[in-house]
Formats: sequence, C-alpha cells, structure tokens
Amino acid sequence: MEAALDEYLPFWKQLSSAQQRVLQAQVVKRLVKAGTVVHNGSMDCVGLVLVISGRLRAYILSDEGREITLYRLINRDMCLFSASCIMNGIEFDIIVEAEEETEFFNIPAAGYKEIMQESAAVSNYTNQLMATRFSDVVWLLDQILHKKLDSRLAAFLVEESELEDSLNLRITHERIAQHLGNAREVITRLLNYFCDEGLIGLSRGEISIIEPKRLIERASGSLRQGV
Amino acid sequence: MEAALDEYLPFWKQLSSAQQRVLQAQVVKRLVKAGTVVHNGSMDCVGLVLVISGRLRAYILSDEGREITLYRLINRDMCLFSASCIMNGIEFDIIVEAEEETEFFNIPAAGYKEIMQESAAVSNYTNQLMATRFSDVVWLLDQILHKKLDSRLAAFLVEESELEDSLNLRITHERIAQHLGNAREVITRLLNYFCDEGLIGLSRGEISIIEPKRLIERASGSLRQGV
Repeated sequence: MEAALDEYLPFWKQLSSAQQRVLQAQVVKRLVKAGTVVHNGSMDCVGLVLVISGRLRAYILSDEGREITLYRLINRDMCLFSASCIMNGIEFDIIVEAEEETEFFNIPAAGYKEIMQESAAVSNYTNQLMATRFSDVVWLLDQILHKKLDSRLAAFLVEESELEDSLNLRITHERIAQHLGNAREVITRLLNYFCDEGLIGLSRGEISIIEPKRLIERASGSLRQGV
Repeated sequence: MEAALDEYLPFWKQLSSAQQRVLQAQVVKRLVKAGTVVHNGSMDCVGLVLVISGRLRAYILSDEGREITLYRLINRDMCLFSASCIMNGIEFDIIVEAEEETEFFNIPAAGYKEIMQESAAVSNYTNQLMATRFSDVVWLLDQILHKKLDSRLAAFLVEESELEDSLNLRITHERIAQHLGNAREVITRLLNYFCDEGLIGLSRGEISIIEPKRLIERASGSLRQGV
C-alpha cells in the first residue's frame, strides 16, 4: 500500500485546502541506502524528513571529528533539524544518516516554512516535536554527566537489540564508541569486561547478548523506554 | 521608568486586542531575592518568566542530587520551561533559581497556552526561543564530551567575569562544581593549578582573574559569545 502524506501529518486536517495543495505539490518520496547522509549540517537545507520505513540517526560532530548520536528516527518520526535553515535560533549542525535502507517523505524547507508562519496548528506541532527532541538531548546530557559508562554501554546494547529485534548485533566497537562519544579502546575494554562476566559473547564483527536480563539490570536507571 | 509588557514581547503587535487584554490582565510583576527558586520542575507550572532585571539560572538535577547549569537568563530573556506543563513533549525537570535579586514578568501558563494555540506568531516565537535553548544545550553537550575540563573551567570563569563585569568573583568552588557538573575536589585541584600558573589568584571566598587574556586563550574553542 502506498504511504500517503495526509496520514503522516497530524495537523493535516487543520490545513486549508490551499495549504494541503502546496504540501502535496512539493513533497517528494525518497529511498536511500544504508550509510547515505541525508542531511549534512548547515551546508544543507534538505527540509522536513518524515520516515516511512527504515531508520535514521541524527548526530553531531565535534571539531576533532568525534560523533555523538542525539537520537534515532524510525517509522513516522519527523526530523526537524534537517530543515534547521528555517528555524531561527538553531546554531548547531546536525548530520542525519540512514542506518539501514530508509524510505521517507521530504517536504522542502521553504514550503513548510510558509505554512508554519500562517498556521498555529503547524507551528504548535513543530514546537511539540522540538520539545521531544530537546528532552532526548537533556536526557543524554544527564546520562553522560551522571551515569557511569558501563550503564550507558549496557543501555545502548539493550536498545540496539530492541531496534534490531535480535540478540546478535552486527556492530563494530568503533561504531559503538561513536554513538557514546568515547574512545574505541575504552569501549573494547568494557565489552571485554561484559564478556568476561558472561553478559555478552564477542566474535568477529558481532556481539551476542547472552544474558539480556542481567544486561538490563546493568543498564538500570540508564535505560529509557523507546528511542 | 516602569517596564511595560508590550515592549518585552516581540509578537505584541501581531496579537488581537482581545489577546493583548488577556495577557495584560493576567501578567504579574514579581521581585525575588537572590537564591529564590522561581520554578521547581514538574511540581510547578509557574508559566512564562520574562526577566526585567537581575539574573536567573536554569539547571537540571540528577538522581544523586548533582546540578548542571543549562543556561542563564538575563535582561529580556524569556524562560519557557517554567511553563513546561503547557509544552507537550517536555519530559525533563528544570529548576529556575534567581542568582541575584531579580524582577520579572510572570505570564500564567494557561493564558499563554490559549494564545499560543490561536496565534501562529506566538507559536513561532515560542519555537524560536526553544531552538535557542536547544542550541545552548547541544553546545553544552559538545563541551562536556569533547572539551577538557580545564577549558570548560576557564570558559566558565571568563563568562562569570563578563556577567559580573568584574575580575573579582565571589563564588565558591562548590558552586562552580555544580555549574560544571563535577566534583568539588576536582574543581579545587584545577583552580589551584590555574593559580600556580598565575592565571588567577585565590583567597577566601574569592577568585581574582589576574591574566584575563591567557584565561581566554585557555578557554579557546570552549568559549562561546554571550550566555
């Protein structure tokens, strides 16, 4: 069944028919391969991205080239910051990358901006979306400042396992380090420690979760429901 | 001269006269002493806070009781999260405290919400405000992850000196540690190190900046203009 834009935008019915036509005329459906950079900081202004299927990751990059994942976007999530050029006040660069093959609606920035400036419903929806992402980032900040890295790593593995719906994760230590904003060596050391404790198994390019319950305990206080 | 609400709200002229009357009827002017907690997380829903004079600090508190300053609010800044009860999607608790004697307008949450839901101008303004605070927090996250504590401490002292317009800061090590989300011992060690290097002088309850230029260099990359 073809995904239709009106089902994906909660404010659709509050738009005038002229506004609906503008959005319908401008929206583009795109399918990208895993690894594709959908949006690259302030160099781009891709516009709104509305996930139909697959998974996107939004992250920031430090001057030294280290990454930190801010949040992930899955089915029906909307990425606001790929349209950061139309949001006054946004001063950071976010990179949005497809973690797997991803299909999404793309609403060009200019069209969305026009409607947002006219419609309180669209603007309030945008607000709510930003508040949710803001909460994600404040949560992350709290994690980084106040939780130990072992809990964060355990929480990451549990989350990853839920996202992939599998106990066997094909992910490199380098990649996990990027997610958590740490050095690869530190992550490898901790993974080896979890392995010694029997929580996980390690083989080339794969991490197997052996004791999910104990891993969740380990993550306790650090694990948040959902992405 | 009496501060008037219309000069403080950039969207004032875009309101209907009915909306202007609602805000005028509801707004309260408050004067609080240094140390007053103006808003305390989800227990409160104080509403919008619009600073006339003085300084407020917005921070989060971890389970273990450690603080981290998210941002400060000075003249004409508006605090959104003291009205977090009306923002769908906000899932964190912010505490707002007066750092010095502070006078502010307080617009009750319900009144603001009503107008925000009707007016795209108000909603877009709220959006922009949230985007600015979001940028502050992402910047902080980047600092914490990617800058060394010595740069962050130097940046903090420079910022504090600008805010106070003085090279002599009356602030305890404990307080700095709370701002930066670190242990007091770590901060004291670093301050002693700065002192040994001749950047600052330390005396009871006071930190004197001796070499502002070198302190700014130390903060380089870590120092952001403004608050």
